[in-house]
This record gives sequence, structure tokens and C-alpha cells, in this order.
Amino acid sequence: MIILGVDPGSRATGYGLVDPSGGDEHLVTADTIRLADTDDHPTRLKQIYDALVDVIDAHGPDEFAVEMPVYGQNPQSMLKLGRAQAAAMMAALNRDLPVAQYTPKEVKKSVTGNGNASKKQVGFMIESILSAGEQTFAHDTADALAIALCHGNRDAHDDGDSYTGWASFVDANPDRVSE
Amino acid sequence: MIILGVDPGSRATGYGLVDPSGGDEHLVTADTIRLADTDDHPTRLKQIYDALVDVIDAHGPDEFAVEMPVYGQNPQSMLKLGRAQAAAMMAALNRDLPVAQYTPKEVKKSVTGNGNASKKQVGFMIESILSAGEQTFAHDTADALAIALCHGNRDAHDDGDSYTGWASFVDANPDRVSE
Repeated sequence: MIILGVDPGSRATGYGLVDPSGGDEHLVTADTIRLADTDDHPTRLKQIYDALVDVIDAHGPDEFAVEMPVYGQNPQSMLKLGRAQAAAMMAALNRDLPVAQYTPKEVKKSVTGNGNASKKQVGFMIESILSAGEQTFAHDTADALAIALCHGNRDAHDDGDSYTGWASFVDANPDRVSE
Repeated sequence: MIILGVDPGSRATGYGLVDPSGGDEHLVTADTIRLADTDDHPTRLKQIYDALVDVIDAHGPDEFAVEMPVYGQNPQSMLKLGRAQAAAMMAALNRDLPVAQYTPKEVKKSVTGNGNASKKQVGFMIESILSAGEQTFAHDTADALAIALCHGNRDAHDDGDSYTGWASFVDANPDRVSE
């Protein structure tokens, strides 16, 4: 089974594909989509969508996971982030992939054992797990791989605690949602 | 020329098609997509996308316009709204329609002459313009028609003041963006 993890952003969107078959995670491929330096936000959304559709068609992942922030940045940033997330999700949905969502804390905890790990710690663990430390990844690429690994771990343990729905997440985490 | 206006929301998404040819606006069709009562947000995004692709394929609009809020609600609401907007935009982008964005104030001013008009006033004007008062529209449908008419007016006057890009909008309206 191949999992596509995506860390969406309106300037750069990381993606990573891992194959966690047999509990021994393998890197399939990973990179960061650098978005056009244009003021036209729809153009960037289309770029995210098209690039991810190409990735899906090239590598045939079975499942899709994306990071879902729960603490607010400012409202305009959240609007733009929501748009980038949806462009990525639409690529998966239009290719009939199931979409799972994880909070940054869940991803960090799953990969490093610590929900408050730094980006550097996450990157180090990702490089250790997927390349025996021989390869380095850009931040957004490492984050995307962490999301894919997090989803692989959830699938493996099936502890019924992944949040594919918004309301179910909010119900379970009322203290982690800003009002 | 036919314009598709959309008022995206994650519970209900209004759409309206108008033909402003010759300055005499005609209603083509309009309705509100009521989204599935599900906690699964990706399912609702897919529903917005699929319904709008169907509308585009059935009526062949030439241009697409969407409302872009600038005052923040809470960050989680903005994230969900951004996702709904992007699902609608992706439908247009994947059918090669140009995407324009207008603020609620621009839409109200264009349709009623008053940027602070109430929903009721907007609805009244929409019904007067498009059906000689013989038809009533649900709020989300009326808002979508208002967006389409606003875009038609901008096209007609071509005053160079429509915001197709985020940064250009922010540059022009620093006081209307929340930080």
C-alpha cells in the first residue's frame, strides 16, 4: 500500500509517498511544489491540483493524508491555507482516494514520540526512518513524509483515533479549536 | 456571455448564471446546493465541486466570479470557508473558466448602490432586476446572482478595479484586511 502525504501551503506544498508494507517503511518519492510567484491565487491553487494529480497518476497511491492545523493563525492566513488544502484534497478526491486529516501534534507525536517536537527533530526522524540518514529533505517535503508515516502508523494500529471529519475532531478536541 | 456567480459555504453553496448581454441582464438559472449533513468535510468539498462541474457542463458559462470575504470570522470558520471557495474555484479552473473575486461590499454596492446594504435589500434588487419581482430566491441563491451581476457590471465598465489576485487586493485595501 502506498500513502501520499501532503503538507499544503499557498507558497510551497510538500508531498511524500511512502510504502509502509510489512511495517518497514519505504520511501517512494517526495518533493516540494514551489508555487508560481504570482499574485493570482487561483493560478496557484490550479498548480497545486495539477501537480498532485500528476503525482497520483504517476505513482498510484492508495490513500491520501493531509495536515489540518487547529490553532488559528490570522483569519486571512487560514482562508488561504484552507484553499490550498482543498486544492490538494480535490486532486485526491477526483482520483477516488480516501482523505484523512491529522493535526500537526498528531503527526509529530506519531513520528517522534513527542507532540511538541521541533521541525528539525521531525526532519531528523524522517531521514533516519526513510533513508538511514543518507538523504536530506526540505522542510515541506519532510513534513509531507511525516504525515504519510503518521497515516501509515494509524492504519497499522487502527486505534480508531484518526479524524476524517471536522465535527468529530472538534467533538474530541474542544480545547484545541480556537473560537 | 454567461457569467456564473458562486457564494461558497460548507453547509450551502449558492450559484447563479446570468447573461448580461447588451446591458439587459437575463437570468439563466440559479439554485443553492444543500450539502450533505455529514461530518466528513472532504465529502462536502467533493459535492460542491461535482455540482458546479455539472452546472458548468450544462450551461457553458464564459466567466466565473466568487465572493471573497475580507473581514475575519474566527480562524476555523475561515479555514472551512477557504476550502469551500477552493472547491468551487477548482470546478471553474478545471473547466478553463477565468476566476474573478469580489468582496461582499463590492457586490452589494454594485447591485444596490450601497456597500452596506442588507441581505433583504440585495434580495429585493436581484428579484427586481432578474425577474421583475415575480420570482423569489433563497438567500444563498440571491447572493450568488448578485456576485454574477457584480462581475457583469465590472466587465461592462471595465474600470480595472476587480481583484483577481490576493496581493493586489490587499495592496489596494490595506485597511480591510484583518491581521
